[in-house]
Amino acid sequence: MTSAHTTTPARRGPYAKSAQRRAEIIEVATRVFASRGYHGGSLRDIARQLGVSLRGVVHHFPSKSELLEAVLEHADQTAEPWFSEHADERGIRSAIVELVEVNFTRTELLRLLAIVSSEASAPDHPAHTWFVKRYEKLTRNLTTMIDRDVSAGRIQPPADPEAVAQAIVAAWDGLQLQWLLAPHTDMVGRMTLVLDSLLPATDD
Amino acid sequence: MTSAHTTTPARRGPYAKSAQRRAEIIEVATRVFASRGYHGGSLRDIARQLGVSLRGVVHHFPSKSELLEAVLEHADQTAEPWFSEHADERGIRSAIVELVEVNFTRTELLRLLAIVSSEASAPDHPAHTWFVKRYEKLTRNLTTMIDRDVSAGRIQPPADPEAVAQAIVAAWDGLQLQWLLAPHTDMVGRMTLVLDSLLPATDD
Repeated sequence: MTSAHTTTPARRGPYAKSAQRRAEIIEVATRVFASRGYHGGSLRDIARQLGVSLRGVVHHFPSKSELLEAVLEHADQTAEPWFSEHADERGIRSAIVELVEVNFTRTELLRLLAIVSSEASAPDHPAHTWFVKRYEKLTRNLTTMIDRDVSAGRIQPPADPEAVAQAIVAAWDGLQLQWLLAPHTDMVGRMTLVLDSLLPATDD
Repeated sequence: MTSAHTTTPARRGPYAKSAQRRAEIIEVATRVFASRGYHGGSLRDIARQLGVSLRGVVHHFPSKSELLEAVLEHADQTAEPWFSEHADERGIRSAIVELVEVNFTRTELLRLLAIVSSEASAPDHPAHTWFVKRYEKLTRNLTTMIDRDVSAGRIQPPADPEAVAQAIVAAWDGLQLQWLLAPHTDMVGRMTLVLDSLLPATDD
């Protein structure tokens, strides 16, 4: 983490200000898209909520679809490195349960992902390709982690690791929807049941 | 089915015409909401696509949220009686796989359900309560069917039938999203894997 400290002074001045404005736009856009959907949210709304001109937003994100992709990329990148590291150290089952718990603090982001991934299932949606690739990547990463856990003797070897990866991602998405609708849903308990059934530990 | 024949003649005249127009509005509204989301679709769009005046739609559905609920009710009612009967006769596992296959012909309807259920997870969405109740009902019905299959000796008794019901509904929703995004997804294969893991048959 030393490198972060070393580079901090360089991020003052116009560049830092611009990066901060980008981050603010992404934060507000996440909330606006989450509450109104991609079609319902507008750059004008986002500018108004930030108290800046429309031009101030368009300077950073020339189109709404570019802003959406920045929001989605940001959402995924926040969790990804941490998730991989945890899976490496303590296994995929533990990493998933931990991320389920972390996600309790990211309700609006998860709502946005749920809404936009469904909207983007239509082939003509501007984020369609992004989401197709996202699920391919999620499945690929999870399959690799499953294979690694099998080698490490942590889990019982599934007949078809890729199929199991897809099913776990699916159950996770679906449980998250039920939890977004009814926050008393026992996400950790249900996700543990899914993992015990689809990806049992070696000592189960 | 004789009663249906007996009542058919009574459905001519103004009532039948009105019922037919309602059905047409619901059909077009399903497509419009499915492609633009609930916020993006408008009664005006729907009227234009039907070639009728806005007043012609408002006469049947005074507000957009009333039309949305009619669309959603219609979607669920189409499958419900048939699904229960099938589950009664051949078990819940068989009924689920059969419905997965029937759903291949209802892409736009499933896209609509995926989009609107995510949008409606926000507590201030007009369809929020409808969806909360929908998932409660789905879980309740599936739990009853699981209990019945256990009594009939069709499936191995799960430790917590309600938890299993919620997890199956979740995996089903999530797989459907993956299939909507990438139609080559092996829905039947993945759903069978989920059932074999969460709700194994007695002979497995």
